[in-house]
Amino acid sequence: MAKKNKTAISPTREQDYPAWYQEVIKASDMAENSPVRGCMVIKPWGYAIWENIMQQMDILFKETGVKNAYFPLFIPLSYLEKEAEHVEGFAKECAVVTHHKLEPDGKGGLKPAGKLAEPLIVRPTSETIIGESMSKWISSYRDLPVLLNQWANVVRWEMRTRMFLRTSEFLWQEGHTAHATEQEAKERTLLMLDVYTKFVEEYMAMPVIRGSKTVSERFPGADDTTCIEAMMQDKRALQAGTSHFLGQNFAKGSGIKFQNEEGKEAYAWTTSWGTSTRMIGGMIMVHSDDDGLVVPPRIAPAHVVLLPIFKKDEDSRVIMESTRGLKDALEEKLFHGQKIRVELDARDIGGARGWDWVKKGVPVRIELGPRDIEQNCVVMARRDEPSSQKLSMNREEFIHQITDILDNIQDNLYNRAINYRNENTVEIDDKKAFYKLYKKAKGFNNGAFVMAHWCGSQDCEETIKKELSVTIRCIPFDSPTEEGKCICCDNASSRRVLFSKAY
Amino acid sequence: MAKKNKTAISPTREQDYPAWYQEVIKASDMAENSPVRGCMVIKPWGYAIWENIMQQMDILFKETGVKNAYFPLFIPLSYLEKEAEHVEGFAKECAVVTHHKLEPDGKGGLKPAGKLAEPLIVRPTSETIIGESMSKWISSYRDLPVLLNQWANVVRWEMRTRMFLRTSEFLWQEGHTAHATEQEAKERTLLMLDVYTKFVEEYMAMPVIRGSKTVSERFPGADDTTCIEAMMQDKRALQAGTSHFLGQNFAKGSGIKFQNEEGKEAYAWTTSWGTSTRMIGGMIMVHSDDDGLVVPPRIAPAHVVLLPIFKKDEDSRVIMESTRGLKDALEEKLFHGQKIRVELDARDIGGARGWDWVKKGVPVRIELGPRDIEQNCVVMARRDEPSSQKLSMNREEFIHQITDILDNIQDNLYNRAINYRNENTVEIDDKKAFYKLYKKAKGFNNGAFVMAHWCGSQDCEETIKKELSVTIRCIPFDSPTEEGKCICCDNASSRRVLFSKAY
Repeated sequence: MAKKNKTAISPTREQDYPAWYQEVIKASDMAENSPVRGCMVIKPWGYAIWENIMQQMDILFKETGVKNAYFPLFIPLSYLEKEAEHVEGFAKECAVVTHHKLEPDGKGGLKPAGKLAEPLIVRPTSETIIGESMSKWISSYRDLPVLLNQWANVVRWEMRTRMFLRTSEFLWQEGHTAHATEQEAKERTLLMLDVYTKFVEEYMAMPVIRGSKTVSERFPGADDTTCIEAMMQDKRALQAGTSHFLGQNFAKGSGIKFQNEEGKEAYAWTTSWGTSTRMIGGMIMVHSDDDGLVVPPRIAPAHVVLLPIFKKDEDSRVIMESTRGLKDALEEKLFHGQKIRVELDARDIGGARGWDWVKKGVPVRIELGPRDIEQNCVVMARRDEPSSQKLSMNREEFIHQITDILDNIQDNLYNRAINYRNENTVEIDDKKAFYKLYKKAKGFNNGAFVMAHWCGSQDCEETIKKELSVTIRCIPFDSPTEEGKCICCDNASSRRVLFSKAY
Repeated sequence: MAKKNKTAISPTREQDYPAWYQEVIKASDMAENSPVRGCMVIKPWGYAIWENIMQQMDILFKETGVKNAYFPLFIPLSYLEKEAEHVEGFAKECAVVTHHKLEPDGKGGLKPAGKLAEPLIVRPTSETIIGESMSKWISSYRDLPVLLNQWANVVRWEMRTRMFLRTSEFLWQEGHTAHATEQEAKERTLLMLDVYTKFVEEYMAMPVIRGSKTVSERFPGADDTTCIEAMMQDKRALQAGTSHFLGQNFAKGSGIKFQNEEGKEAYAWTTSWGTSTRMIGGMIMVHSDDDGLVVPPRIAPAHVVLLPIFKKDEDSRVIMESTRGLKDALEEKLFHGQKIRVELDARDIGGARGWDWVKKGVPVRIELGPRDIEQNCVVMARRDEPSSQKLSMNREEFIHQITDILDNIQDNLYNRAINYRNENTVEIDDKKAFYKLYKKAKGFNNGAFVMAHWCGSQDCEETIKKELSVTIRCIPFDSPTEEGKCICCDNASSRRVLFSKAY
């Protein structure tokens, strides 16, 4: 398996980062572009990662009292018209259903027929229809809080698409909650950001910076948009989740009113929060390398792959039996409450077999040949180490240690990512240096995460965005009060914010 | 809680079965009609049942080697045109996307804009697009079998809808497999029918009759459609799942070819199989009674609800603590590998509280008052017994026995349903008796499951369907060879088939 100085993925990250990204997806067999413009087919390896994300994130949601529900795929056009401010962003890009049947077109084909009285929009979010439902379900303070979540597909017509990062149809969850008090809704906003932080850091091994968006980057209609931002290997930021405090804005738009304890009518305070298959794009760009995908153990479709090695004159039955025994022994163990997932690949295709699993990012590869079986050993390779590095281990010891090994890989991926981010995060107080850093950004090197002072003016934010394609990713929660001068206009500033190029 | 001679649901099943069905759904808070024509909102109680179905059925799928994937929501119109035979049934009823944006209509509203060059159909099934993918993924016998499943929403425009039973959008799973040999594909067809049988009988407690559809009731393009049929309380049949052996028909339509072991090109043999939220409609109609929903324990959103009883002069803190202690103790136990799900309802709303949970169909209700706590007791009521029937049990004994109690309820529901079906299944050899039975069918009483001889002619099948609205539900696998005369035309027949009115 040693391919010295060669990489399994070509081009490499440094050579062509966007092309590398597509190649990693292709080589791991996660997904492919579909014949339908802008949509992708999520293949079993990619979908299993999404299933692991859904299942485990869902448990965290439910621990906070959230319940899942399902709302219709279609939104009547009139709903979007009602919420003009909200719809503006989506209106430009949505799938519109205008007919409800097909009929022969007289040329051997079919054509749309049965025109609808009112067009239907394929949901870009379920915000409006969930708001409408809440307004019917809530009448008293006793009905509050309402804590809902939906796992579903949504559609936003995209002109330029990239698998997982931006597709016309994508899979996501959207949470919507309604509360009797402002305080409670604010706490819920942060609680869900905490859940996202925990999930993305502990399960996906991606360190994030938590903060609030600036006014101009806020979700339309939100009083506060909080977010988690992760650094990709090309030093761009990717927003991995958002949680919005919506004040009473949506409640007023949707008529979510209730009688409070004093018997008076009041508008509810609402929140919404979401994550999507985009996180998988982030995972690819944080962890993967020039040999392909690297999947953190806690969301990996397989934790371990077993590769029995057959020699010509050996008894392959014995080897298969021994391999199956190892599989059974591993599958009896639990890794964070989940059964250890083991693949057994007995294909006789030479070295390509091992490389297939490197490219798929399986955390642990085990080779098992006749001599290993004789000596009661296994040969282990870890995906977080160079592919040529292999360790011979006692078989029982390996079984005993597998959960520790997986935890160690998980930690290692996280630490590697946070070190990378720290190495590429700088404080800059000089406008020239700031401009110089980003002006030379290109390809794999998009500068850095820059902590710089900002006076709070939208003009300065806009100038930097226009001149450098750099945005304020967030005002980090842990950014201390500190006297300084705005990186753009030199006016007084009390706090540094996070600047970066972004996806 | 004793409401003598009164029922929680009005009308009763006998009074007005369709209205009773809607009331059960409303009273249990499972779902409601949405503002979007023909679509429903699945509320948390209803969606939790679907989640339990999905999670557990998915495990059974995966045990047979099936992997989940996700295909686009939209199907290009040209795909449907290609498969004329297949599309015929769906073409009359589908949502057609013709535009990809909205723009101001000049009257303060919005109108569709950005007309698509080719209309897109919201998937009525993913058959065509999965076929297209398989044709790309499969090139050698080494790539086979391909065993795919998708959990998703689909849309079929329905004019008359009924929640869970028939809605324009519904949730389902569709499995698609491709195999190198006819034998293997046939075995897979039956294997998946076995999985459905196991799930519907053991998890949903609904006994089913397994068999093949007649040629005229087959899925278009299938060589054999196998199904499971359940009896509802109104003595109609509901098809709870189908598994199709598609021969090489779809492989030919989609170009799913492979090189076999002899190096020759051959078409694959395919299967498809599906179940949907319709099963929940079946569950309601098999188990529920005039007091509302009854949910089998294995798919119940909550297994147990705890109802602490506060007396004026008692210490409510002590009661709450004791109730929480009971909750914790129960939640540590496993029921078929799942944590026992416990609701604690401490609302102070009198008798309505207990009835709420009766109507929601929770298997076990526990009352816990000051005296019970003193005596280390709980008062238990089971949903499969009359609501007035209560049993005082030692607290530790209850905790110890809870899984047995739930299993007992599960068995009881199944046995009740199979007894009901057996009581209402008859063999009829006389045409007059057959016609008389179904002619008087009305409201709650739709006759029976009739095992009768059929000569195999589509004319006879059609005549009975036209004259009685009775169809051949299936040719049961276990129907023995037996000489007889067709119930319709008196010609020779070698086997009885299952006739019934149906949903």
